Amino acid sequence: MSTHLFSDDKVNLRILKERATGMRWGAVPEGTIPLTAADPDFPPAREITDAMIEYIKGEYLPYPAATGLTGLREIISQRMLERKNINAPVDQIVLVDSAASAMRAIACSVLEPGDEAIIFDPVDLLFGISVRAAKGKVVYFPSVYKDGHWDLSSLESYVTPRTRMICLCNPHNPMGLLYTREELEHIAQVADRHGLWIMNDEIWSDIIYSEKPFVSISSLGPELNKRTISCYGFSKGFALAGMRAGYIYTLNKDAFEAVSPLASAWGVDVVTQVAMKAAFEHGYGWVDQFVAHLQKCRDHIYNRFSRMPLIRATKQEATFVTFPNISATGMDSQGFVDWLSKEHKVQLVPGTEFWFGPRAEGHVRLCFSTSMGILDEALDRIEEGLRELASAK
Amino acid sequence: MSTHLFSDDKVNLRILKERATGMRWGAVPEGTIPLTAADPDFPPAREITDAMIEYIKGEYLPYPAATGLTGLREIISQRMLERKNINAPVDQIVLVDSAASAMRAIACSVLEPGDEAIIFDPVDLLFGISVRAAKGKVVYFPSVYKDGHWDLSSLESYVTPRTRMICLCNPHNPMGLLYTREELEHIAQVADRHGLWIMNDEIWSDIIYSEKPFVSISSLGPELNKRTISCYGFSKGFALAGMRAGYIYTLNKDAFEAVSPLASAWGVDVVTQVAMKAAFEHGYGWVDQFVAHLQKCRDHIYNRFSRMPLIRATKQEATFVTFPNISATGMDSQGFVDWLSKEHKVQLVPGTEFWFGPRAEGHVRLCFSTSMGILDEALDRIEEGLRELASAK
Repeated sequence: MSTHLFSDDKVNLRILKERATGMRWGAVPEGTIPLTAADPDFPPAREITDAMIEYIKGEYLPYPAATGLTGLREIISQRMLERKNINAPVDQIVLVDSAASAMRAIACSVLEPGDEAIIFDPVDLLFGISVRAAKGKVVYFPSVYKDGHWDLSSLESYVTPRTRMICLCNPHNPMGLLYTREELEHIAQVADRHGLWIMNDEIWSDIIYSEKPFVSISSLGPELNKRTISCYGFSKGFALAGMRAGYIYTLNKDAFEAVSPLASAWGVDVVTQVAMKAAFEHGYGWVDQFVAHLQKCRDHIYNRFSRMPLIRATKQEATFVTFPNISATGMDSQGFVDWLSKEHKVQLVPGTEFWFGPRAEGHVRLCFSTSMGILDEALDRIEEGLRELASAK
Repeated sequence: MSTHLFSDDKVNLRILKERATGMRWGAVPEGTIPLTAADPDFPPAREITDAMIEYIKGEYLPYPAATGLTGLREIISQRMLERKNINAPVDQIVLVDSAASAMRAIACSVLEPGDEAIIFDPVDLLFGISVRAAKGKVVYFPSVYKDGHWDLSSLESYVTPRTRMICLCNPHNPMGLLYTREELEHIAQVADRHGLWIMNDEIWSDIIYSEKPFVSISSLGPELNKRTISCYGFSKGFALAGMRAGYIYTLNKDAFEAVSPLASAWGVDVVTQVAMKAAFEHGYGWVDQFVAHLQKCRDHIYNRFSRMPLIRATKQEATFVTFPNISATGMDSQGFVDWLSKEHKVQLVPGTEFWFGPRAEGHVRLCFSTSMGILDEALDRIEEGLRELASAK
């Protein structure tokens, strides 16, 4: 069944060239493979699109209640408990129109101008955008991962009297790695000792491979999460990138009261809410098959990269992005990406400060949520390029 | 044809009780008529829902380009010129997920904490919410309308060294009135003399009755609009309240650069963009018929209110809300609304400071975008209540 939903013919390039204009198929020259934006190349679960169509056929599209569609927060809460061991009260969940929007609401609700926020480096750019939108100051903490562990030993030394928040991305984009319970406890304790908020981005928490479980910092319980505000988006796990849907939750009532006025006042599109509800009610079977497909892709990439010169990859524990080191090529990230796109027709995201922070340099990000056929073709092209570079050395 | 699209049987209360849970049919006791949220009781143009369904049937829902669907801004720009005499460059239009969201982006992009924004009083609550979200200070200017003119003679005296923005709602909600070219020139000149931004909310600019044209402050040209940033939403004119769709535009490139990063970073749902595009491509025939229906409703309300005791109404020039004065009842706005809801089963929005500002007291807001049958029944109930109060006096 997995082969049916995620077989090569399910990536319809004719439609994607029309629709995927956000840094993917519709934004590259003919013949180039874009492994750029973290955007699945597959249609979402049929149950989701069917539910949307049925709702629209009902014609009327009035304002829904500010708390969302009846039963939506209930099913969100239930699935978080079942799948992620997160015990979030229904009335401490608020719908948002994307994880991006959620992150801005969280930053704006807790930061005063000039407050410092600790952002792991590298990490996805949305933390920095959110903190700057709230007129806060970004303080980078090096995300060093070595021998299967995050090195958090110096985290506390980055806390100053102006520090107000730690930004946590778990699972981590672009590194594709998880945090263990012990690592999360360490972060939570640092935050607790200094009265810091934690902005906890769990947008990737549905794409988890079989070797290691996802642990949410929220599963450590309310005592260690007094100032944790978490967000989730449907873009990644449910292939709903264009639908702009997500939610914020927190275990703490006071934290919820701080964030919810900023998050909810603008409402979430009602057809999108229908998609969210269908996703949580009927979509997890699809997600499990998607993850099974992605795990094969991940293994394939890791095996192939291991045999290529000048590139060094880590095996992903989560997410459908990977972040190999290409510094042995002698090119910088932007230079490598430009060269690869021009000479070998594969687009990647460069590990530049803009995208992932200053310590991303020397890496590129590759999104592998596509068919095995397209992925293999892209890997052939990357290998050809790397061998060409290696033999020229 | 107007009678077909907006006949009594087109308000399907079974569906609306399920769906209109945002302060309308789904949020009132059985038997009560809600003339509350400014939310059309009719389905949107068939061309819009058909376009959405067709898009969803294409299955893939990836990220669209940050600038939106191909051709969307072009058709927006074209219709603004054709219908509203607004000459907005395509690349100075940015999509937003609602006028509410647009207003927050505008306020956040131009206000520093503590900056003052002049808000006409009464006016819709979203200006105040936006200004406060940007940590600005609200300064109320009395919206006095007398003998067919707005009294703007004291506007300039409200400007202080901390003033940074004037908020303009044209057409005006809840008063349902337009500004003339001369009045807009006066506002633009005050802003220009003091280097103030103008947040110009034109969400109601499609619902204009036949006696007086809508004049956009933008139609005064770039010189008088150096710091004007305008917003529009599809909720009202196209009956898309649940879809959260709108745009920001400005005639000034610098102003656009100030606002667009805050407006666009979060994206607009792609199915909603499909609805927006279909609305602007094919929906204005529907809008014209909707306005024809609403004009009959407006005339009927005005004629009936004129014959009722203890209520004084102005004839609307625009919008599908009206804001009669009920102070002769001896009740305050909240008291009248509570009494009317309990005793006569019609819900209105009270003219309280929360909804419309301190000078709204003594008024109630009534939304009349429903069928003539429902409207007439609601007016019967209001009349019965007012006659009862009058005879008790």
